[in-house]
Amino acid sequence: MNCTIITIGDELLIGQTVDTNSAWIGQMLNAIGIKIYERIAVGDIAVQIVKAIDTARSQSDIVIITGGLGPTKDDITKKTLRTYFHAGEVLHEPTLARIRAIFEKRGRPLLAINETQALVPDNCTVLDNERGTAPGMWFDVEGKVIVSLPGVPYEMKHLITNKVIPKLKTQFPLPEIYHRNLLCVGIGESSIAQMLSGIEDSLPSTIQLAYLPDLGMVKLRLSAYGITDAAHKAMLDKVYDEMKRIMQAYVFAEEDITLQEAVGRLFQAKGKTFAVAESCTGGYVGHLVTSIPGSSVYFKGSLVTYSYSMKEAILGVKKETLETQGAVSEACVREMLDGLLRVSDADYGVAISGIAGPDGGTAAKPVGTVCFAVGSKESIKTYTIQFFPSRMENIRASAMTALNLLRKAII
Amino acid sequence: MNCTIITIGDELLIGQTVDTNSAWIGQMLNAIGIKIYERIAVGDIAVQIVKAIDTARSQSDIVIITGGLGPTKDDITKKTLRTYFHAGEVLHEPTLARIRAIFEKRGRPLLAINETQALVPDNCTVLDNERGTAPGMWFDVEGKVIVSLPGVPYEMKHLITNKVIPKLKTQFPLPEIYHRNLLCVGIGESSIAQMLSGIEDSLPSTIQLAYLPDLGMVKLRLSAYGITDAAHKAMLDKVYDEMKRIMQAYVFAEEDITLQEAVGRLFQAKGKTFAVAESCTGGYVGHLVTSIPGSSVYFKGSLVTYSYSMKEAILGVKKETLETQGAVSEACVREMLDGLLRVSDADYGVAISGIAGPDGGTAAKPVGTVCFAVGSKESIKTYTIQFFPSRMENIRASAMTALNLLRKAII
Repeated sequence: MNCTIITIGDELLIGQTVDTNSAWIGQMLNAIGIKIYERIAVGDIAVQIVKAIDTARSQSDIVIITGGLGPTKDDITKKTLRTYFHAGEVLHEPTLARIRAIFEKRGRPLLAINETQALVPDNCTVLDNERGTAPGMWFDVEGKVIVSLPGVPYEMKHLITNKVIPKLKTQFPLPEIYHRNLLCVGIGESSIAQMLSGIEDSLPSTIQLAYLPDLGMVKLRLSAYGITDAAHKAMLDKVYDEMKRIMQAYVFAEEDITLQEAVGRLFQAKGKTFAVAESCTGGYVGHLVTSIPGSSVYFKGSLVTYSYSMKEAILGVKKETLETQGAVSEACVREMLDGLLRVSDADYGVAISGIAGPDGGTAAKPVGTVCFAVGSKESIKTYTIQFFPSRMENIRASAMTALNLLRKAII
Repeated sequence: MNCTIITIGDELLIGQTVDTNSAWIGQMLNAIGIKIYERIAVGDIAVQIVKAIDTARSQSDIVIITGGLGPTKDDITKKTLRTYFHAGEVLHEPTLARIRAIFEKRGRPLLAINETQALVPDNCTVLDNERGTAPGMWFDVEGKVIVSLPGVPYEMKHLITNKVIPKLKTQFPLPEIYHRNLLCVGIGESSIAQMLSGIEDSLPSTIQLAYLPDLGMVKLRLSAYGITDAAHKAMLDKVYDEMKRIMQAYVFAEEDITLQEAVGRLFQAKGKTFAVAESCTGGYVGHLVTSIPGSSVYFKGSLVTYSYSMKEAILGVKKETLETQGAVSEACVREMLDGLLRVSDADYGVAISGIAGPDGGTAAKPVGTVCFAVGSKESIKTYTIQFFPSRMENIRASAMTALNLLRKAII
């Protein structure tokens, strides 16, 4: 049982929009045992859309299409599908009622082009979109399924979760799937591969090991598709336990969660709180932490003191320290952390100051030099790490390091 | 002249990695007049890679492949290309020397699997990768070009910018391309479409208008490919000027920049600074602002006071206000902004407090309720806006709104 995902939109090809939908759909379908065979992105051009659907149908049982369902003239997915299936057009009354209600609630006038969103090909099953104006469409074609969904992530996610997945589950016998994840931080992909080479060489052909590096971390994923017997699962579990033993010093989670989630769970479990003092990361650590619902239980806040004056006024960093040692120094981050623990009531804290680049580097402190202080009122440690020449990579790597330092401080 | 992009990696299909490479490559090639015809993502499986290359070659002049060049066993792109071209294998000495130097600098032992990264098919031109261990490979095949690059964004970007684009420019006659962008904020896609319907109906077939909605903003893009004469450009310019006149109240930029860049340029041009007091956005406003190089000129910092205690201790919000009106109230954001302007030396400030969700909503203040205060010591305005039911959408929309309020405050 496999699926091809087609994303439609010139904005994807010219690169003005990053396609986050495909990754999310991939995760959701994978979790119910449907493999993604291929992903195809095409522009808002009928012949290309048709070619992509033909390719997808020839190789997959399920085709999921997102995008191109907006009210404007450049969106042609629905029209193309209707032509493709030689279908007529019908008005879907519940959708029209919903569109009217949405516009009424927003106090905006209902336009004729908005009303056309309630017109659908007469051979589809409408998937009610409770979050927007473009309905989802489900086509049953010669034992295969073609689904067309709006490209807006918030609407697409709702339709996949509440309409598409339940319907797929009733319509197809889905194979069992067995995955286990081991998430490591503070070690590179090739070093891990060397540590695991013995295991990898002796893996049975039915079990796959994938290395999924992400900035500052590597996800290891053992998987087996179509497993039904306990003995096979036990075999995978045995390999997993052995991997875990070898990688012990670097493992931060055994589920597919983010480092900020792992840190949050640790603090919550221990009933402790933390706060952050940021400079070069500019609020990114705070953003990562607060992207997790419920983070207010353990997260007090982040003081992003980007200027010298803010470092002095908010965190009490000494003018002398800034003048003699600079803002990117272990002395400065120590004072930032001291100040943070003084002005907040957090149990733990981490302070970060570095040169993200592209400007500001010197021979002694090149771009990518980042200082960290971590700890509690009882004990503070400082570090200096040399990262990359690129701004965004430095910001991301610094944030991941800060989170990992917090993790190590509390365990 | 067009290009198909192939991205390789199981991690893309199972959705553990979001493909940001394709969008970036699309932007870069578009800028030099190369259209992206299609994007294909396949797993680390030889037959699928071969099929994707065949498809890409049949429809495009240029094929760019990223991913699958790592040292581990699951990375098979290089081996597959060698088999595909029936090529032999040669050692690329400069790459081996670079790999050795990288490991020496990092103080890590050089492993045999790392050395294999210097082996390349004997029919390719090596594109030196100064940022990593996997070299880029350029294949000239029957008048078409196939390029294989590492999937690590930092390495891929370097190779595209410094190796691939210069080589494409010398090898192909690139058509002229003419684009103009109009970026609007604070208005929805269909309202814009209605305002521009007259223009759209009378557009000549050689000029395309695209709507590219992004959270809280819409990019309008007029484009014409293969334009060489001044008269045609003047025609596009005339349409553009008319669009600009109609959309005047909502336009924040005429180039393809982000709202945070537009705000940064405004503050820089006026020689003014700003700071932020964040609650529900958790540092995201600070992150957006500091993702722009050089933002320290106009950005003082962001005080992310996530807890009541931090709001009181850092910004001087009154306990009484929090108890009687709650943290999500115009009274609270006004006090947050007062405090921010008092403790920072910024000229302008914006304060944000809201209910991002999924928890914390009430009947009177449902999830998505966000309060803003914006201004300077001279004048402060407050607003309450109702956004979405989803956490990340609320965080993003709140941050965009805060930036737009800052923009309006200074112009």
